[in-house]
Amino acid sequence: MSSESEEQQLSKKAAKKEAAKQEKMRRRQEAAALASSAASLSVEEDPHSSNYGDVSLPELKSCSQIDAGNWSLAVSSMEWTCVGELTQFLKEKEVLIRGRVHITRPVSKNMAFVVVREKGFTVQCLVTTQGEGVSRQMVKFVAGLNRESIVDAIGVVSVPENPIKGTTQQVELHVRKLYCVNKAMPTLPINVEDAARSDAEIEAALQSGDKLPRVNQDTRLNFRVLDIRTPANQGIFRIQCQVGTMFRQFLLSEGFVEIHTPKLIAGSSEGGSAVFKLDYKGQPACLAQSPQLHKQMAVCGDFGRVFEIGPVFRAEDSYTHRHLCEFTGLDVEMEIKKHYSEVMDIVDRLFVTMFDVLNERCQKELEAVGRQYPFEPLKYKPKTLRLTFEEGIQMLKDAGVEVDPLGDLNTEAERKLGQLVLEKYDTEFYILHRYPLAVRPFYTMPCYDNALYSNSFDVFIRGEEIISGAQRVHVPEFLSERAQACGIDVNTISTYIDSFRYGAPPHGGFGVGLERVVMLFCALGNIRKTSLFPRDPQRIAP
Amino acid sequence: MSSESEEQQLSKKAAKKEAAKQEKMRRRQEAAALASSAASLSVEEDPHSSNYGDVSLPELKSCSQIDAGNWSLAVSSMEWTCVGELTQFLKEKEVLIRGRVHITRPVSKNMAFVVVREKGFTVQCLVTTQGEGVSRQMVKFVAGLNRESIVDAIGVVSVPENPIKGTTQQVELHVRKLYCVNKAMPTLPINVEDAARSDAEIEAALQSGDKLPRVNQDTRLNFRVLDIRTPANQGIFRIQCQVGTMFRQFLLSEGFVEIHTPKLIAGSSEGGSAVFKLDYKGQPACLAQSPQLHKQMAVCGDFGRVFEIGPVFRAEDSYTHRHLCEFTGLDVEMEIKKHYSEVMDIVDRLFVTMFDVLNERCQKELEAVGRQYPFEPLKYKPKTLRLTFEEGIQMLKDAGVEVDPLGDLNTEAERKLGQLVLEKYDTEFYILHRYPLAVRPFYTMPCYDNALYSNSFDVFIRGEEIISGAQRVHVPEFLSERAQACGIDVNTISTYIDSFRYGAPPHGGFGVGLERVVMLFCALGNIRKTSLFPRDPQRIAP
Repeated sequence: MSSESEEQQLSKKAAKKEAAKQEKMRRRQEAAALASSAASLSVEEDPHSSNYGDVSLPELKSCSQIDAGNWSLAVSSMEWTCVGELTQFLKEKEVLIRGRVHITRPVSKNMAFVVVREKGFTVQCLVTTQGEGVSRQMVKFVAGLNRESIVDAIGVVSVPENPIKGTTQQVELHVRKLYCVNKAMPTLPINVEDAARSDAEIEAALQSGDKLPRVNQDTRLNFRVLDIRTPANQGIFRIQCQVGTMFRQFLLSEGFVEIHTPKLIAGSSEGGSAVFKLDYKGQPACLAQSPQLHKQMAVCGDFGRVFEIGPVFRAEDSYTHRHLCEFTGLDVEMEIKKHYSEVMDIVDRLFVTMFDVLNERCQKELEAVGRQYPFEPLKYKPKTLRLTFEEGIQMLKDAGVEVDPLGDLNTEAERKLGQLVLEKYDTEFYILHRYPLAVRPFYTMPCYDNALYSNSFDVFIRGEEIISGAQRVHVPEFLSERAQACGIDVNTISTYIDSFRYGAPPHGGFGVGLERVVMLFCALGNIRKTSLFPRDPQRIAP
Repeated sequence: MSSESEEQQLSKKAAKKEAAKQEKMRRRQEAAALASSAASLSVEEDPHSSNYGDVSLPELKSCSQIDAGNWSLAVSSMEWTCVGELTQFLKEKEVLIRGRVHITRPVSKNMAFVVVREKGFTVQCLVTTQGEGVSRQMVKFVAGLNRESIVDAIGVVSVPENPIKGTTQQVELHVRKLYCVNKAMPTLPINVEDAARSDAEIEAALQSGDKLPRVNQDTRLNFRVLDIRTPANQGIFRIQCQVGTMFRQFLLSEGFVEIHTPKLIAGSSEGGSAVFKLDYKGQPACLAQSPQLHKQMAVCGDFGRVFEIGPVFRAEDSYTHRHLCEFTGLDVEMEIKKHYSEVMDIVDRLFVTMFDVLNERCQKELEAVGRQYPFEPLKYKPKTLRLTFEEGIQMLKDAGVEVDPLGDLNTEAERKLGQLVLEKYDTEFYILHRYPLAVRPFYTMPCYDNALYSNSFDVFIRGEEIISGAQRVHVPEFLSERAQACGIDVNTISTYIDSFRYGAPPHGGFGVGLERVVMLFCALGNIRKTSLFPRDPQRIAP
């Protein structure tokens, strides 16, 4: 045989090999397509079986799709529509949605409803054998879906004549295809539907003889991943996000710089026993109870005006509706040109702007919260009321409440004063300033005119303290003196005091808890409702 | 005497009493005014003594100003001008500034210069007896001011014919009044002028025989309050603030919700020994090494797309230029509709937008950093280059660098690959994806087509890894399997795995260190330069 025929043979072989390779590849692609579109679908014979089914985790080894990682069986060219966007303007349009099975309502062998929920919005989906490509098996599949499972649905938007009860969206989806992307377990620890119910609904049902389940706070927190799916919770944490956003935007627009100070502190923070201690590479350390010292150091470091949003740790044993062992602190520190009222001016404009924006931009969220936990909108003035501590004491006195004029107000007195202020000034948001020096931290600047008082203030919402602020002592010798007078070992805070020896501008600031702002703005009554995964003396999970 | 005269007497008495009271008040006010304007001024006889001096902490008891808390001796009706705003447009205008004594330069008994600095901007102030109301005593007072002291100065803006060397502002202030608001100690541990000097300046001086002080990194950090006053540091932390701002703004505009997850975690976080342990009310606990588990739980809790900015704690012993024991994590987690490339799309657009904005809005800050630490602007593309891990390995192989095709890249290989990518694609910012499964955490989703690889990616800036991201396993059974395969006790992460049993959408995310972004964008070479108060294995103060 000539070398030519050898070459021919070789090329034939190569062609054969190539053909075999291509055939193999085609088969593998077919197998892959099959695997990803029908692998775990209903085994019953059904010509429409490709219109529904489970998207199982593909067999990793047998699958050779080029475009690996495709988690949708739906036509890849289709755009996704959010459930919250499904309105009459999409009438007759075919849409693709992803959401959770909120509830299923089988009607007959030929028809079932499934309510799909996404980020608190719900839409009713109709699956009926009268629809194109819908088999009885598909109706059965849909009716049997576990609650909270994730589904992809393709359907046509229809606007029914009568309003739809129990869903946020007033259109219906006539389903053509429906796939289960991820299956939830059949029996959940709590039903989102139950967790979303208001006390009023439960009471009303009880009146007519129905006993509906009430999910208590601890159960909610144990299964927080389910609990935060309720419309009220979806609202609460979006409002929380807006509070943080406004806090930042306002301060940035006023020339503040955002900083990040360490939470790991040598020694024992500002003093006091309520600190979490830990070992730092052999050195005693603790978690910062506030960014107080470092934010002041940043001002002494020429940043002029700074703010921080970060966790704050308190190992206190208080188990109240308003204390957490870890919360998000919103902290501000700024140079003062002449007077501590400059700090109160920032508080005033910042919070009034924030409240305005919340009422304007978070309407849907506030409504969602209010449906489960009804509350009256916060009463506040365009210019925040300021009273001196002495004036506050006098108001209490006039109302027959005797309190120590140089002591702190207790929770009860604060509430009472809030009531009196509301009656007299028609506001639930006000500033009380010139607190007695004795009840403020050592670094608080005394008043010049009367050293029994201090250049400090608290701010109240609905009768509860929410913000604490003051001018700080910026003269190192005087700061040492004040620390000693308050029983603090000056050696433990030497780097703090030293930072004022290098020239320190007069300055002041304030701190506020993010969770408290949301709790009090929405009158929620328990701070655990406004912390995503709360930490209190009895809870460190999930 | 009639009752009338009695009344008259009484009213006389009252009038007398009132007059005495008013006189007393007047005297007290006078005393107070005196105290606050001249109490500790130069004792030498000087008719102009009210134009300068120290603003001492007023005698708290003897002072009875109504408007307490006034920290300025300057005319209260005057507006403040920032040093950075002093330009020729204010020529001939009288302005009031507050800043630090950067340096003083006595010229004669009748004349002295003082450079005043505010937030990194500097202006030259001239004090001369030729000026109105300026005495020799005042010149002496100004010439003797300690560096870094805080001063208030009133003066007229003048535009000199020749450029002013050594200040940022090209105008001069002809001082009329100057008060020291807060005195710095006479000898500082480091001079800001020294700390601000570039290596090039030191070398150049050395060439001409001058040995200028070089402030080393540790000294800087020990006296961080002084160190952060340098123009470069003022720039660095303003750039850091802008990075955080852009991160948030971009994500909020893409429908992400900002969350705050707990840093106090029961057990031992994601596993591994590099955790800080502590006692939580009698329970073993630790500090979160990342918000990984909780941000995924938030996605499972229907927030769809979430992000968090918060501290991250690593008890690692690595003492390198790029590791800290506490840093600010920028974390993202999001539902994936179809493909993990959706996460890379966010990374791509987020960072390109961020870099664009930094270059546009932080010009002054970048210049200030560059003056002390010269660097080339980052090279990046409008659409970020994406290479697979396999492609990366091949590029290294082609360049003669053999690495384990299924192992992780070491720092050296990363640098080399960065170099090769720069040469071939002219970019210093790129994404490397489809990492070997074995080198990624247990919760990383394997590739469908080849389980040796994973739906994961790293992002590189200037040859250093900066972002790590991936699709996560959202199927609880498979997640358990993967955890076990990676040697993790499934019981310790049961709440994490359970949160996927209630229906979990396909999702993915990424994390990036804020300090690293700034360090690599500005090629600063040491992460301690971009952390305000860094924490490393050897440092927990200040």
